[in-house]
Amino acid sequence: MSSPAVAFATENHPRFLNELKNLLRIPSISTLPEHKPDCRRAAEFLVSELKRIGIENVRIIETQGHPLVYGDWLHAAGKPTVLIYGHYDVQPTDPIDEWLSPPFEPAERNGNLYARGAVDDKGQVWMQVKALEALLASNKSLPLNVRVLFEGEEEVGGEGIADYVASKPANLKADFALVSDTELFAPGLPTLCVGLRGMIYTELEVRGAKTDLHSGMYGGAAPNPFTAIAQIIARLKDENGHILIPGFYDDIIPPSPEELAAWRSLPFDEEHYRIAEVGSRQLVGESGYSVLERTWARPTLDVHGIPGGFTGAGAKTVIPAKAIAKVSMRLVPGMTPTKAFAQYKSYVEKIAPTGVDIDVRLIHSGDPCLIPVNNQYIQAATQALSEVWGKDTVFIRSGGSIPIVGDFDRHLGLPSVMMGFGLPDDNIHAPNEKFNLKNFELGIRSLIRFLEEAGR
Amino acid sequence: MSSPAVAFATENHPRFLNELKNLLRIPSISTLPEHKPDCRRAAEFLVSELKRIGIENVRIIETQGHPLVYGDWLHAAGKPTVLIYGHYDVQPTDPIDEWLSPPFEPAERNGNLYARGAVDDKGQVWMQVKALEALLASNKSLPLNVRVLFEGEEEVGGEGIADYVASKPANLKADFALVSDTELFAPGLPTLCVGLRGMIYTELEVRGAKTDLHSGMYGGAAPNPFTAIAQIIARLKDENGHILIPGFYDDIIPPSPEELAAWRSLPFDEEHYRIAEVGSRQLVGESGYSVLERTWARPTLDVHGIPGGFTGAGAKTVIPAKAIAKVSMRLVPGMTPTKAFAQYKSYVEKIAPTGVDIDVRLIHSGDPCLIPVNNQYIQAATQALSEVWGKDTVFIRSGGSIPIVGDFDRHLGLPSVMMGFGLPDDNIHAPNEKFNLKNFELGIRSLIRFLEEAGR
Repeated sequence: MSSPAVAFATENHPRFLNELKNLLRIPSISTLPEHKPDCRRAAEFLVSELKRIGIENVRIIETQGHPLVYGDWLHAAGKPTVLIYGHYDVQPTDPIDEWLSPPFEPAERNGNLYARGAVDDKGQVWMQVKALEALLASNKSLPLNVRVLFEGEEEVGGEGIADYVASKPANLKADFALVSDTELFAPGLPTLCVGLRGMIYTELEVRGAKTDLHSGMYGGAAPNPFTAIAQIIARLKDENGHILIPGFYDDIIPPSPEELAAWRSLPFDEEHYRIAEVGSRQLVGESGYSVLERTWARPTLDVHGIPGGFTGAGAKTVIPAKAIAKVSMRLVPGMTPTKAFAQYKSYVEKIAPTGVDIDVRLIHSGDPCLIPVNNQYIQAATQALSEVWGKDTVFIRSGGSIPIVGDFDRHLGLPSVMMGFGLPDDNIHAPNEKFNLKNFELGIRSLIRFLEEAGR
Repeated sequence: MSSPAVAFATENHPRFLNELKNLLRIPSISTLPEHKPDCRRAAEFLVSELKRIGIENVRIIETQGHPLVYGDWLHAAGKPTVLIYGHYDVQPTDPIDEWLSPPFEPAERNGNLYARGAVDDKGQVWMQVKALEALLASNKSLPLNVRVLFEGEEEVGGEGIADYVASKPANLKADFALVSDTELFAPGLPTLCVGLRGMIYTELEVRGAKTDLHSGMYGGAAPNPFTAIAQIIARLKDENGHILIPGFYDDIIPPSPEELAAWRSLPFDEEHYRIAEVGSRQLVGESGYSVLERTWARPTLDVHGIPGGFTGAGAKTVIPAKAIAKVSMRLVPGMTPTKAFAQYKSYVEKIAPTGVDIDVRLIHSGDPCLIPVNNQYIQAATQALSEVWGKDTVFIRSGGSIPIVGDFDRHLGLPSVMMGFGLPDDNIHAPNEKFNLKNFELGIRSLIRFLEEAGR
């Protein structure tokens, strides 16, 4: 069907892309304190643009951390209200020397835009803003009522938005949420994500001697926190990737036979995935489960780093006083962060070797979620996507966590439509993050058509 | 007995101490490339002082790394020749926030001098230089022939001096070596160290995916190098501290019953050691061996750090592409670095989990050594020490490694006299390194008297 807004977007596409590059130049790394001012600059960039395109009541909402950005347009009487969500913060850039072009100098190569945040999530936020601009510019109105809520702490747990949503403010009243922070299952395949894993991110601190000691003088008598932390980590999973925390799997709700059957019909080549995406000697994980089951519907445990001790070049013969393991677990429907953390903490305390003191801390957490596919907004999204991409829409889950989706459900009663346009090889959270330029363009078109369909 | 040199040292002590502070202000951290110019400055500081006090042929000897400093005085016809050794390089300062005063701003507190390198080894090098100055200034000659050889790579394996010594240059011909890089067994107790552990310092690199991956998307399928490295480390030692590398203990020559009996008569309080020196909940190590046996006469294995991955504040949900464990082993008489490394490498390759690639590298190594106590220079040292300190000299070993002692023996045929004046709680290689000021003073006096006795 013809849409003046789609025509507007097509005409203005080069400008849209240049604006996105400006947003990507702001190094809004939420986890690094030195980038706090950059996070605010990114928020203000969005405020300014939302005002310019005609969104009303645009403002910064302060939190304990990085600010939220809010705006609305509520003149579509009798129509539903959408709450549009995205995040302007990005992951750190290390290891920096593996980037082919600097992470905050957006570069076009091979039909992609390379930059930290290109697809996670600034590029997707910008698609939302540009879809709204196209609709407002071409119709002088929107097809439904819109509220916009962007955050700057998604990569560090989203505490500010979680608190704000939990307070159920009147200005978040809506009928459904639109979340653009996911990906297509394969290039050209319209995809809706209807399930997310939850997570708990923890720190395990192990302390031995009161101070760093010389390993020659004290080796053989002083406890070594790194040896101890390795002993603990080695007992968290068995060699088949099965997590050994007692009770960890007890409450899992497995996927239905129908959902499993649908996953089996997806275009997925495990060998291609191993070579092209992961690039490892072999894949790992629980035997008896497919890769999609292992990454979408099974809990996992990963170690992200073990700071402390000597990490420089060369040699230092020290027995460090302490070591910290950054350990996270992904949770699936049926599991709760509270229970999973309690089980983890209790187990780690039990298996800790003698001679050391340990401290287990929860850094942040998010609930897993599963969206019913038969609601009218998922149906509208399916229709819009199939039309723009010329193919049937597939329903998938994601192994990642978008805690806000659970919060929207629990606190505001909103079902989420997770419509995102990343690709599996976009290197999010890694060097050389990219966004496919065609997906950026079709994504804007899809969002326009979805909002039109949802307001019909 | 009265010695004009001792009198000179006593009169000039305040100046000696001020000069040492100037040497300590040079941050000659040998393992950090950015401090390479500082290492040279420290070498030049020593060159300048050796020239000033009357040592001859003083010069820098270039190596692949930090330079050596050489000088001699060879006018004591018919007397033996001593090769005096020490090192001007120091350990890194991390964790820097645990220092009570800046590591390169020497500070006097509680009868100690606090600075990185205060006792390891600049303070002890300076005692040697000042003993030579006192002898030359008060007698216009030395009681024996002297060669001086200082290095700047002791903390990073000492490759430069090892190569130089292995080349057996004519200017290192001597009868014995004097090495001042050890400590007294207890305050006020004159001590000679007659045994050292050797070591191998290794890096174990584990690689999983080709790039860092998002732990949500790939957790459950991608191998995690940190988990793998923990599994490997956990299998290197059992819970009793026994190293599990096959054959690792096979060639050990245990201490004689007489040596063990002498160790049992040393003033050693295990509980005081645990609380005051180590400060840990309990001591660890092989059962059936005393703390002195475990740290002097048993091999050990320690992990110093596990660089790679995310080590910043906060959270990053990454499956790192690689992790590196810095692992060293201390070796005891009977063991050789070559065989120990081969055994370690072979075992690690065998136990590495599936899905990852590993690389085991030897960074540096040193032989263990044991000095016969009945040679004339050890006897002269015993006499000098007992006279200055008013007590019988005890013979101990050290758990640390001074590879040069083995090199002096193997390549030059020199027995070493390891006469050092540190204390067990001097925090070498750790924050708040110190040197007891009384030991600095009595150490200079002891060295003067030792050189006089050795030249008698």
